[in-house]
Amino acid sequence: MLYTEIPSQRPVTPLLDAIDHPQQLRQLEQSQLAQVADELRQFILYAAGQSGGHFGANLGVVELTIALHYCFNTPNDRLVWDVGHQAYPHKALTGRREQLTTIRAKNGLAAFPAREESVFDTFGVGHSSTAISAGLGMALARRYQKDPCDVVAIVGDGAMTAGMAFEAMNDAVAHHADLMVVLNDNDMSISCSTGGFAKHLAAIWEKGQFINIDEQGQAFVQDCPEWDYNSRLHQSATDAADNLFKAIGFDYFGPFDGHDVNQLVQVFNALKKRKGPRLIHIYTVKGKGFAPAEADQIKYHAIGKINASPAKATAPKYSDVFGQWLCDQAAQDDKLLAITPAMCEGSGMVQFAKQFPERYFDVAIAEQHAVTLAAGMACEGLKPVVAIYSTFLQRGYDQLIHDVALQNLDVTFGIDRAGLVGEDGPTHAGAYDYAFMRTVPNMVIMAPKDENECRQMLHTAYIYKGPTAVRYPRGNGLGVEIQQQLTALEIGKAELLLELNTEHEECISILAFGSRVQTALDAAHQLASKLDITIRVVNMRFVKPLDEQIIRDLADKTSLFVTVEEHAVMAGAGSAVNEFLVHAQIVKPILNLGLPDEFLPQASHAEMLQDCGLDVQGIQNAIEQAWLNFVQHV
Amino acid sequence: MLYTEIPSQRPVTPLLDAIDHPQQLRQLEQSQLAQVADELRQFILYAAGQSGGHFGANLGVVELTIALHYCFNTPNDRLVWDVGHQAYPHKALTGRREQLTTIRAKNGLAAFPAREESVFDTFGVGHSSTAISAGLGMALARRYQKDPCDVVAIVGDGAMTAGMAFEAMNDAVAHHADLMVVLNDNDMSISCSTGGFAKHLAAIWEKGQFINIDEQGQAFVQDCPEWDYNSRLHQSATDAADNLFKAIGFDYFGPFDGHDVNQLVQVFNALKKRKGPRLIHIYTVKGKGFAPAEADQIKYHAIGKINASPAKATAPKYSDVFGQWLCDQAAQDDKLLAITPAMCEGSGMVQFAKQFPERYFDVAIAEQHAVTLAAGMACEGLKPVVAIYSTFLQRGYDQLIHDVALQNLDVTFGIDRAGLVGEDGPTHAGAYDYAFMRTVPNMVIMAPKDENECRQMLHTAYIYKGPTAVRYPRGNGLGVEIQQQLTALEIGKAELLLELNTEHEECISILAFGSRVQTALDAAHQLASKLDITIRVVNMRFVKPLDEQIIRDLADKTSLFVTVEEHAVMAGAGSAVNEFLVHAQIVKPILNLGLPDEFLPQASHAEMLQDCGLDVQGIQNAIEQAWLNFVQHV
Repeated sequence: MLYTEIPSQRPVTPLLDAIDHPQQLRQLEQSQLAQVADELRQFILYAAGQSGGHFGANLGVVELTIALHYCFNTPNDRLVWDVGHQAYPHKALTGRREQLTTIRAKNGLAAFPAREESVFDTFGVGHSSTAISAGLGMALARRYQKDPCDVVAIVGDGAMTAGMAFEAMNDAVAHHADLMVVLNDNDMSISCSTGGFAKHLAAIWEKGQFINIDEQGQAFVQDCPEWDYNSRLHQSATDAADNLFKAIGFDYFGPFDGHDVNQLVQVFNALKKRKGPRLIHIYTVKGKGFAPAEADQIKYHAIGKINASPAKATAPKYSDVFGQWLCDQAAQDDKLLAITPAMCEGSGMVQFAKQFPERYFDVAIAEQHAVTLAAGMACEGLKPVVAIYSTFLQRGYDQLIHDVALQNLDVTFGIDRAGLVGEDGPTHAGAYDYAFMRTVPNMVIMAPKDENECRQMLHTAYIYKGPTAVRYPRGNGLGVEIQQQLTALEIGKAELLLELNTEHEECISILAFGSRVQTALDAAHQLASKLDITIRVVNMRFVKPLDEQIIRDLADKTSLFVTVEEHAVMAGAGSAVNEFLVHAQIVKPILNLGLPDEFLPQASHAEMLQDCGLDVQGIQNAIEQAWLNFVQHV
Repeated sequence: MLYTEIPSQRPVTPLLDAIDHPQQLRQLEQSQLAQVADELRQFILYAAGQSGGHFGANLGVVELTIALHYCFNTPNDRLVWDVGHQAYPHKALTGRREQLTTIRAKNGLAAFPAREESVFDTFGVGHSSTAISAGLGMALARRYQKDPCDVVAIVGDGAMTAGMAFEAMNDAVAHHADLMVVLNDNDMSISCSTGGFAKHLAAIWEKGQFINIDEQGQAFVQDCPEWDYNSRLHQSATDAADNLFKAIGFDYFGPFDGHDVNQLVQVFNALKKRKGPRLIHIYTVKGKGFAPAEADQIKYHAIGKINASPAKATAPKYSDVFGQWLCDQAAQDDKLLAITPAMCEGSGMVQFAKQFPERYFDVAIAEQHAVTLAAGMACEGLKPVVAIYSTFLQRGYDQLIHDVALQNLDVTFGIDRAGLVGEDGPTHAGAYDYAFMRTVPNMVIMAPKDENECRQMLHTAYIYKGPTAVRYPRGNGLGVEIQQQLTALEIGKAELLLELNTEHEECISILAFGSRVQTALDAAHQLASKLDITIRVVNMRFVKPLDEQIIRDLADKTSLFVTVEEHAVMAGAGSAVNEFLVHAQIVKPILNLGLPDEFLPQASHAEMLQDCGLDVQGIQNAIEQAWLNFVQHV
């Protein structure tokens, strides 16, 4: 069935309702699976409409998920879902059907597979391209324990471009591991897939032949049936005669129609019996069965709740501020090139890609390469800008140190989704970037207090000759006016924003970073109305180099320093302030506010901030308490 | 010529002596190149004998280096050497011949290509697998600037297994970049190459045919001539009919004899004219031309100085202590598996690999995969140990967070080469691991004061259920007795080692980490003889969790806290102490000693420590100065 609307009422799904464990699915006749697929698809449409969340990839794997749980003895056999954008059908079939409407909400189901949630979730994911490594680890562990089982890693074609997937395939062959990889090829990651690998998959598909397997597990070549999919988006430039997977040492089968549940069952049952590393290449359609999503796969990668109250007219997203700055800076300077690891839309680069196609580089999911590519460009005197999420820069950390910072190359990092990210949960938190970057020599690190400062900081970073990073949060700005004029800030210079109750001698100095500046201001006003003290609030702007002068100047007047940031307290910006005070032999009480030393479960951004005491009330309470302690001790 | 001894006298090299710039090489007749190669090889033998350093790889690329500089217009054309183990001939031909004997010494030539050293060194390296990304960046930058040049990335077969190389190849095809990759296939990284990729290269070679190119740049298939190399070390298991490079979209040529300088010249000249991404596969012998190195390629990866005074009987290396512990622990517990990313010898795992082959996993140069493979094994209830250098763990940082720590999996990291690494220089420094690990929830991080504590800490880490890291330095232990009995330390418990001059009320408390504990003890004795103060020295043992109790207990008695570590001060262990003191509202003067915020140039380890003030004298001076300042302020 092809649906055109997301149902607002729960659909009638009699077969699905009887499946609380895959064992019940396995008791059905194979002829019933098509109906299960139709029911499950309707249910996914309904549930995703209720909860919002990832959408297209889940619709694409309905038949695949059914066939896997039908053919394999889960949970003893291990299904390892890559990225996890595609795990809703899996969750629905493994006892979590009725909770699916709670996905991504506080105390609801996790957005991705999570080991603590279900024994069927064999490996927690969120970042891409880990499934082959994890699945190989499981397969080798089970072989070593003489308790072998079937291990299936399900990987999208987008995720396959990350080098880690290649590393894992290389190693699987070394061990002749009994590992099955299902390549779920929908020609997309979040954006369209790009590069030699995507071209190669297209070439295989265009060849018009596939490698099938008979009931005895023997491979044979067969002409393709009529495919009812649109042509691949790009022409292949690689040689279909040379199969990459066979070259690396995998047995290769496919491409198969990933929406033909009966064929999938036949293939999995036949290939279960084979030994060694096997790759099954299936072709699916992202958004399958929902007409608008099939037509616009990027837009329907994820959706919002259908019943959500209409969004208020809000300030622009930080990613859009980045995108606009990028276009404006590029118009001024033809040395600007921009790089994204497959996050064109998320990073706000759609307009830039249209306006400056020859200066736009989507390198696929390849964070390591993205950073070193920028380094190479900088060696030739150009000025690359790398747009990357904080959590994904963790994949390019060595390259940041070894290829960029060590050579003091002129690369600008626009670090998005820094701090807490709400519903995507702990896998996507950007909680560690101050720590892992500030320990690296030559780095300049900034965090803006609002969207206008973000724009000006990006400009500041860009014209600075050396490695720089501007880290900004997920979501919308504060609604301040954005100055079109690009004006560089002075490197390492903070901004004293507020002084209240200056008639008092005792003073609390709040050194605030990035997203917490406005919150600190609000808290300061509240505190000033309650306490007989001077309160100063500084927008620190730079995590590195710190404005040491302003801290020295304040020190004489300050009874209590407070640092506040949306980053782990451990090794964060407050920790940098501590280090400076120690170094300067300024011995004062300090209060470091930031994220606690734990992985924080999903919730809305506001809920998470409140839970961490980083909202206005939390900051106010913590400072008040620290002040009372201080007064008691004096 | 096949040499059997490393000459102690400078060889006579008339052609080589006339080459101070590759332009002079290019003016020679092609017929003279073989003699240049012979002279250069003799010279490399001599120079490496004088300086010590990387050896086998350099001998293997003599002909290749000559052919590249002969055919390409360096430095305008860009040669990008991967890893840089192979750059001595390149340095010798580019004006640095007579300095080659100073390589790796303080103020001498860098061990690897370095941009600040020469315009011919287009990209600084040290870690592997960056050259294709960097070269692609250069090629795209030059194309964009309408100033194209030839860019050649020279990559070993070992380095090709790292996913980053695959990411870069994928992207090069996306852009149809004019990039030449020379795959220098010697079937080795430092150890023997492993995995599907190595098997594939063997399959290509065993096929007995190669793809040649004529003067017009047209490819044609040719039967292989007689190869005078030994057979590949392992049988191929992949399909030679499927060429991996062609599959990904590169034009492929080879395999060619990498020691036939005339053929290389012909190939490079022909392929210069082609557009798009091209891969030239050459086969070379590591250690070529020096009989002992050809016979034992692992041993001769690097050599010591030939005239060095015989080594004193010394304490065991930390890597050997790790290796012995690994064997002993494995003998006790059959759940132990061990993983190395291609560093069997360096990490001290030769004996383990022999004794427990079914529990030993060399995953090739693939740090990302190594960490997530361990996570997968831990999911099945086994207890993987990942042996990795501090600097290379930077490549697996996201996997440490996302795959191990977030899931609180039971993985033990043995982190070698932590701190300064001497002659290998800044690319290999392990100066950031405390910072990037301690900000991650669930981690337990230890650093031993000596080799016996290293052994006991590894045991402690191993039996702890959760992610743990023990970081230990390059080089030898202190010579203490090693207890065979494995005894777990209490998690988060430090050790008060020394109290001197306890009759004084004022006290300096030195909190020392890892390699700096013994140095701090020595400094404390010196200080105690000069100053009328109590001095206490604590071996902190744990960077995370800190022993908060001992700090609290000391606080009342302490006038000045000192932290000392062989790690960046920024965000390091001392910074963790600061954070705790701030948190506990203990307001005291503190002195943080550690590495400065800069990339430190190569020198001997002792020289580097002295330069950083982290030797006994430096620590003593810094504490004395801080104490005098403190006394003045009181």
